[in-house]
Amino acid sequence: MSRENIEALLITHLPDVRYLCGFTGSNAALAVTLRKAVLFTDGRYTAQAHEETQAARVRITEPLQTVTGEACALLEKSVSKKIRCYYDPGHTTVSALAVMRGALSTGRRRGFFSPLKQPILSELRMVKDSDELDRIGAAAALGNRLFQAILPHVEACVPEAEIAASLEFFARSMGAEAMSFETIVASGPRSSFPHGRATARKTPRNGFVTLDFGVILKGYCSDMTRTVCIGKPGRAERTAYDAVLEAQRAAVAAVRPGVTCGEVDEAARSVLQKAGLDEYFTHSTGHGVGLEIHEPPRIAREQKQELKPGMVVTIEPGVYVPGRFGIRIEDMVAVTDRGAKVLTPVTKALIEL
Amino acid sequence: MSRENIEALLITHLPDVRYLCGFTGSNAALAVTLRKAVLFTDGRYTAQAHEETQAARVRITEPLQTVTGEACALLEKSVSKKIRCYYDPGHTTVSALAVMRGALSTGRRRGFFSPLKQPILSELRMVKDSDELDRIGAAAALGNRLFQAILPHVEACVPEAEIAASLEFFARSMGAEAMSFETIVASGPRSSFPHGRATARKTPRNGFVTLDFGVILKGYCSDMTRTVCIGKPGRAERTAYDAVLEAQRAAVAAVRPGVTCGEVDEAARSVLQKAGLDEYFTHSTGHGVGLEIHEPPRIAREQKQELKPGMVVTIEPGVYVPGRFGIRIEDMVAVTDRGAKVLTPVTKALIEL
Repeated sequence: MSRENIEALLITHLPDVRYLCGFTGSNAALAVTLRKAVLFTDGRYTAQAHEETQAARVRITEPLQTVTGEACALLEKSVSKKIRCYYDPGHTTVSALAVMRGALSTGRRRGFFSPLKQPILSELRMVKDSDELDRIGAAAALGNRLFQAILPHVEACVPEAEIAASLEFFARSMGAEAMSFETIVASGPRSSFPHGRATARKTPRNGFVTLDFGVILKGYCSDMTRTVCIGKPGRAERTAYDAVLEAQRAAVAAVRPGVTCGEVDEAARSVLQKAGLDEYFTHSTGHGVGLEIHEPPRIAREQKQELKPGMVVTIEPGVYVPGRFGIRIEDMVAVTDRGAKVLTPVTKALIEL
Repeated sequence: MSRENIEALLITHLPDVRYLCGFTGSNAALAVTLRKAVLFTDGRYTAQAHEETQAARVRITEPLQTVTGEACALLEKSVSKKIRCYYDPGHTTVSALAVMRGALSTGRRRGFFSPLKQPILSELRMVKDSDELDRIGAAAALGNRLFQAILPHVEACVPEAEIAASLEFFARSMGAEAMSFETIVASGPRSSFPHGRATARKTPRNGFVTLDFGVILKGYCSDMTRTVCIGKPGRAERTAYDAVLEAQRAAVAAVRPGVTCGEVDEAARSVLQKAGLDEYFTHSTGHGVGLEIHEPPRIAREQKQELKPGMVVTIEPGVYVPGRFGIRIEDMVAVTDRGAKVLTPVTKALIEL
């Protein structure tokens, strides 16, 4: 805050609150000045807030809607006149800003709140410390074990939802706090839907099954995808699989400090271009992962953000031929001083079941 | 829109998009004028958008971040000068509003966008039509069956997470698309955390276990809570359970068209007050349920919103004695012409396991 010349800051985005003070409840506002930090939450979380919160005092407010307003009122009282209070415009709705302003004394409503010019919380959170890397590594390792555990259950003529159910049961049994997003089990022609949730539809006798899943462990997310084949793939399917795998490896190989996210994306995209498949690669190559399943940086076209040691990103190119088949292969990768460490080292060779 | 004198409307909150046109993808903006509706999404959803979307044309934009901007540009072109376009300030961030304005031609940036004065989408969605009531009823019925299925697995010395894992496995196996929120299994002293997620902690040999869970079926959420007891409850626990149950029944009995949400809340609260337990009832009595797990109306102190036939709300008073025990009993209730229909009619008498 000193470096950015910020004397007062309001944090309401829950993963940011958790990142800064450890509180995990679903209703919170964190008021931070250069001298103090106060967490506001409601009566449902009295015990939990005192147990979890570090480096901030806890105040319980009632009713629960007043949490943000009370934080604003405290900030107003805590700083001298002419000081501005910053907030995150990317996580503050127009209505919330009106509530924030409404909590101030009349004379101060204009000009007290100012949007952060830099997403400083995102920038802090993008580079993980060693404790975070340990947690993410543990979550990713659990993902690896889950993939091994689910493979025997991926068979022909099984409802996708049943495979998802087993996978999620194993996840919980192995200690996951929750899934980090809705499990994707997309089989046969449905594998051409990049975001095909598991449905009651049965897996085909012959064709791809894309499994995209992640867990939450100690608050941190994992994310990985493998595409396996029931029976033998046809020639077009095999060619496309090999191209996606080559693209994925090329992007992983491109990861190192100083390289831009756009360059990593291009590494994957250019392989698919040479294979004549780039028109079927309809999304970006990856995203950051941490307390949230999708965080900065974005590994996408023309992104100028440079990779730094401590960042954790997914590398997940795919090819989706509408109505026919789809393939996606995804690893989680930690940026290290020298390059990339793959956190999900389970085999990427095509598994035929 | 005609009634509210709105000629152009931008919808970006995904449950609202789904409500209006059926599209379920994770990136969308819906541009609506009096003459047409156009859904914007990105290339990941090309096939899905054409399959799902009703009453709107589909346009695919690249890259995926341009979805909202393209919708704004179309709205600008579609209406005559001096017409305002409305947006939902409760679901539009300050940053998103800047993006929306940035997508307009320079001369139009000031004054084109105006926040909706009434939450018209919430108001529409609060009152469910018969198709929605069928879906919600089916989701709630699945919740009932789940409770019956999980009971044999609630035993002493079992990790809470294992009970949650079984419950979620049964849910998926019975056809749930997903859980509607993170399953709560809070046992022993942890039952005094109203929002205690399932942990690795084992259930006690003697004490309460609160199970709060819900499923999603055809997009609609269910939500129910029962508190059961492993072994026999102590006298204080028994007294508190009876009081919560009486409070819950009183609130359900208070539900009928024309009654305010505050009056329903008061019906529960006054029972707990007479029992000397109201200080331990640290949250509101309930909330609306539909495409989202928490929707308007709020069944809370002093809420003036009147109940109307077709609304679906939870009734879930609780008592939480810090460090000792907690109890919550929750039903989903549909408001009918005559009163309330309980959608989760599984027994509320104290089950001793």
